Amino acid sequence: MTTMQAAVLRGIEDLAIEERPVPVAGPGEVLVQINAVGVCGSDVHYYQHGRIGDFVVERPMVLGHESGGVIVGVGPGVDASRIGQRVSVEPGVPDLTCPECLAGRYNLCPSMKFFATPPFDGSLAEFVTVHEAFAHPVPDSMSDDAAALLEPLSVGVWASRKGHVTAGSRVLITGAGPIGLVATQCARAFGATEVVVADINPHRLKLAEDLGATMTLNVAETPLSDAGFEPTVLLECSGHPGATADALRTVGPAGRAVLVGMGGDELPLPLGYLQSREIEVTGTFRYANTWPTAIALAAAGAVDVDALVTGHFTLADSETALLAGVRDPRAVKSIINPQR
Amino acid sequence: MTTMQAAVLRGIEDLAIEERPVPVAGPGEVLVQINAVGVCGSDVHYYQHGRIGDFVVERPMVLGHESGGVIVGVGPGVDASRIGQRVSVEPGVPDLTCPECLAGRYNLCPSMKFFATPPFDGSLAEFVTVHEAFAHPVPDSMSDDAAALLEPLSVGVWASRKGHVTAGSRVLITGAGPIGLVATQCARAFGATEVVVADINPHRLKLAEDLGATMTLNVAETPLSDAGFEPTVLLECSGHPGATADALRTVGPAGRAVLVGMGGDELPLPLGYLQSREIEVTGTFRYANTWPTAIALAAAGAVDVDALVTGHFTLADSETALLAGVRDPRAVKSIINPQR
Amino acid sequence: MTTMQAAVLRGIEDLAIEERPVPVAGPGEVLVQINAVGVCGSDVHYYQHGRIGDFVVERPMVLGHESGGVIVGVGPGVDASRIGQRVSVEPGVPDLTCPECLAGRYNLCPSMKFFATPPFDGSLAEFVTVHEAFAHPVPDSMSDDAAALLEPLSVGVWASRKGHVTAGSRVLITGAGPIGLVATQCARAFGATEVVVADINPHRLKLAEDLGATMTLNVAETPLSDAGFEPTVLLECSGHPGATADALRTVGPAGRAVLVGMGGDELPLPLGYLQSREIEVTGTFRYANTWPTAIALAAAGAVDVDALVTGHFTLADSETALLAGVRDPRAVKSIINPQR
Amino acid sequence: MTTMQAAVLRGIEDLAIEERPVPVAGPGEVLVQINAVGVCGSDVHYYQHGRIGDFVVERPMVLGHESGGVIVGVGPGVDASRIGQRVSVEPGVPDLTCPECLAGRYNLCPSMKFFATPPFDGSLAEFVTVHEAFAHPVPDSMSDDAAALLEPLSVGVWASRKGHVTAGSRVLITGAGPIGLVATQCARAFGATEVVVADINPHRLKLAEDLGATMTLNVAETPLSDAGFEPTVLLECSGHPGATADALRTVGPAGRAVLVGMGGDELPLPLGYLQSREIEVTGTFRYANTWPTAIALAAAGAVDVDALVTGHFTLADSETALLAGVRDPRAVKSIINPQR
Repeated sequence: MTTMQAAVLRGIEDLAIEERPVPVAGPGEVLVQINAVGVCGSDVHYYQHGRIGDFVVERPMVLGHESGGVIVGVGPGVDASRIGQRVSVEPGVPDLTCPECLAGRYNLCPSMKFFATPPFDGSLAEFVTVHEAFAHPVPDSMSDDAAALLEPLSVGVWASRKGHVTAGSRVLITGAGPIGLVATQCARAFGATEVVVADINPHRLKLAEDLGATMTLNVAETPLSDAGFEPTVLLECSGHPGATADALRTVGPAGRAVLVGMGGDELPLPLGYLQSREIEVTGTFRYANTWPTAIALAAAGAVDVDALVTGHFTLADSETALLAGVRDPRAVKSIINPQR
Repeated sequence: MTTMQAAVLRGIEDLAIEERPVPVAGPGEVLVQINAVGVCGSDVHYYQHGRIGDFVVERPMVLGHESGGVIVGVGPGVDASRIGQRVSVEPGVPDLTCPECLAGRYNLCPSMKFFATPPFDGSLAEFVTVHEAFAHPVPDSMSDDAAALLEPLSVGVWASRKGHVTAGSRVLITGAGPIGLVATQCARAFGATEVVVADINPHRLKLAEDLGATMTLNVAETPLSDAGFEPTVLLECSGHPGATADALRTVGPAGRAVLVGMGGDELPLPLGYLQSREIEVTGTFRYANTWPTAIALAAAGAVDVDALVTGHFTLADSETALLAGVRDPRAVKSIINPQR
Repeated sequence: MTTMQAAVLRGIEDLAIEERPVPVAGPGEVLVQINAVGVCGSDVHYYQHGRIGDFVVERPMVLGHESGGVIVGVGPGVDASRIGQRVSVEPGVPDLTCPECLAGRYNLCPSMKFFATPPFDGSLAEFVTVHEAFAHPVPDSMSDDAAALLEPLSVGVWASRKGHVTAGSRVLITGAGPIGLVATQCARAFGATEVVVADINPHRLKLAEDLGATMTLNVAETPLSDAGFEPTVLLECSGHPGATADALRTVGPAGRAVLVGMGGDELPLPLGYLQSREIEVTGTFRYANTWPTAIALAAAGAVDVDALVTGHFTLADSETALLAGVRDPRAVKSIINPQR
Repeated sequence: MTTMQAAVLRGIEDLAIEERPVPVAGPGEVLVQINAVGVCGSDVHYYQHGRIGDFVVERPMVLGHESGGVIVGVGPGVDASRIGQRVSVEPGVPDLTCPECLAGRYNLCPSMKFFATPPFDGSLAEFVTVHEAFAHPVPDSMSDDAAALLEPLSVGVWASRKGHVTAGSRVLITGAGPIGLVATQCARAFGATEVVVADINPHRLKLAEDLGATMTLNVAETPLSDAGFEPTVLLECSGHPGATADALRTVGPAGRAVLVGMGGDELPLPLGYLQSREIEVTGTFRYANTWPTAIALAAAGAVDVDALVTGHFTLADSETALLAGVRDPRAVKSIINPQR
């Protein structure tokens, strides 16, 4: 087999299933047969707008970066015994030698090649190649879906790390989309004993409760400021400037606020509030060194990413999968199975 | 009522129930009616040897420092509304203003007055006074026993904090006595996904499994070095020098080793091993700022300290309670109820 | 001597030298004869506006909180040998037992009593009482002025700590007023090898250079964005929203931004920039546990606070001292000597 | 030129200057003409004993790993503009993709290839190749000697980082050899205000004073325990078990002890002392991410590594250079200039 199917974004709202050559594993790389790909909000955003901020789709680009599969080939220098291994694919490969990489912050590598971020192709295809160190073996007990969803789970792990979530933390999570929901699970797995999730979508709030929220808050009905909850950690996952500003004003003294959601460039920060409580505010950009933790948490049953899946699709149905979340408020995470 | 019963250690193996005046709450203090007191190994050690290291019982001393009860009186400057509150008593009151206290490390305060550490009386009595900030309110859902056992739980919380236990940590716990067992529960509550507990007492190993150990190891049968487990964190709770040395040699690169158990003064440290892996070794001395976390974990059901209790005793039976652990390998934690 | 002179703010632009009783040292307190008081921007602000944010001067209040002197009396429980000790006065005494205090963050104590913050009197008087733990002995080599100026120096120490300034840090300091100037010295003392100071006042930029800045930038002439400097740490000391926003956009990956200056409540934060670089932003509120460091730095000659002093005044001339900085762009720090 | 001279250790006390092919820069590598090589104690140890612990010289090996020079060639993928750059060579290249590397702890990489550690050749030769990311550009103001000595300086930087040395730290340094002396300078550069250096060699103690020690202690005359100094940080650079044990017993509460010197495998640790003060003990293994800091410190004049140099030698005189420290107690650091 020398060609494969891939879901290629050719322009705004123009997605095509194209025949492409099966990629060849280079030195240090493995060839992965992709069994499951999660649809991320960024895939949808590129599909609808052709860009995210400064990243513009100027040439046809394969979508997808949440993916699991099985190693079916190895490049030069890779142990052939890896063939047959089920893996979760970490979709960004840094240059490994810049100061950020050497310091362990490879997510900040300026030469990062990240799947489905222009100009790099993603993994919504039958096969993909990746550096062997970024194809993480998963236990047999883990589903293909879960292997794919270790990617958003990593975002949640990173958010909890950046938030210094630990045993006894009181965590506020704003936004109960897929990221808010993995953040909810991660906060619990990191030891938080109170996790309050705020959103305006009752379906998602219900799911948040099922996944470990100790309280949910429909902010269409009750404003955050009336909830009387003073978190030690805020994980902002909505990307909504108003929600963010409201949420920041609830954080307790010496608390941490982690801005995970992306939402424009000018956030009004309540400076006096932040100063008088010495709150630390930071943002996340992808993740680094999260897969081992994500695998351990999922394998131990401390988190359940399969519970996020609300639909399975074939590669041919990729466009439908992309739009599921737009069309149905009950949809959370669509999975595309390129081998079906 | 102006007098009360108290269990007074008068000399080695000489414990008497004495009539003592009910203490009077001073400025900033509360008077607590004690409903449950846990027996700690240090109580037993003072009973059997009259000393622990440099701390020598030179005058009669009330034993006990794991205690829960209810506030029945307040001293000057304390809000009377606290009367009736069920509380867990933090048994060490520091001077609050030395450099260690001001830096938040009040457990290292050189002027600490700690219950049942000579020359200070403990709480194995019907009533005790304590600074109001060290009488921590507990929820109604928490038993009196659990309120008392927040003290050893705090030791476990502190060990996990010192060990930097977090989501995905692999933790080795040596020693499955009461401290090893709370450490086991705390390590899980802090997010550890693998917790291996080593001991030679099969009853305790069984209990460790019930309380969250993912694996147990009877080191009378299998040496640690054969277990093939490379922890990221060691919580040494046995105080056994040989066990400690063996355990240190299993810790993975950049790992943390926390020496909780006390066991003599000369520990042979494998210097080359420690250096080549840059392992950090530290010890714990009581705890600081742990009650809020301990309460949150117990209230959330993340830990279960009631499960440690293997016997209840009256104050009159204190001597029997002290010796329970010595006489019966199945005994874990004795509780004395001074009001019965 | 039972009465003393004190500089009392009675209303906006209404400062009077009043006769007041010499305060009596309570339990745990010392009586300090004040030899030097630095004038702070907050004193000036209260004088000119009668308030700072929510803190409103509703009753006559003694100004002043940067003070050094000598212990001349002790209250109950304080060792009389402290009489005669030269001290620097830490002007905020917390309740010592709230969760923030116990955690070592006493600056966030909700019950803090801070000099010259309504309704508490300050130290611009001949005598003042303070808890003995907050009267820090200073070496004989240190001037009275310097003893007083350990207070603003503490702000600089705290800023460097919050900024994680260390050996090799590249620090941008915006604002070269007294706080910017102590921050400059502290950044160097913490090991920063590049310290760029930005302001629009050439006198102050010159002083910054004398005090350790490796480069200065007159932002009236050259915008920050043109300077080509990418700091690892920003210490914002101007309180100017525009300067702050500009400065935030220069911080390097994984950098820290510490907002020390106070300047209104709505700071526009460049969210995308902050996220993509994972910059951590925080603010400072006074300081905690800084005096030992401040004393060590000043005693070792690593900082020189005497160099900030541009005028000495008597207590009777307090109003002139307050206005020195308003009237003369060359003025930096006025010192009032209540014993002259 | 296709061959070069190299100093090859062929057996115990058997060093020969051999003709070897000039190495060829591979992909990502640069070819460096070596201008200065510092002699390290490990070079001497291999020369005298043929091994260090488990590392045994089984085949002829080029010595040397402290080196500076100039880039004279580049391999595939390296920008040719680097030719002509003066550089300091970081002598250990890790695999970059193992978990330790990805986490920023590349010094713990199990696949590390380190110069002059069997079986890898070192840089005591006219030319050497190294990954371009490990050939760090140095400013023109820096001497060739200093470029070479950034390697031991890195050990000092790493020790100070591990010790959490910061402004106001009180540091005890045991051992005033080259590492103790760079540690002294680094401790000052990190902000320590008291640096006490202990040794038995008066020449070295004198040099320690010149380089920033605030006090020196000849422990042949005065035992450490009599010095009355309670450090917040211990940097143990002697490798002497007795000195280490003595030094550990002086560390203050919550202090850090960093074991840099190597000295056998069984260190007696004062367990009770360590626990009751919650001291953290760790060891160092080389360094990671230190060159940028070392360069910044040396360029800023915060440290002076040239001051360590007590002799210059030609490559032919390498054996004499190796033995200088053994023969003369005044010798500190020998430099070999392979181009002379």
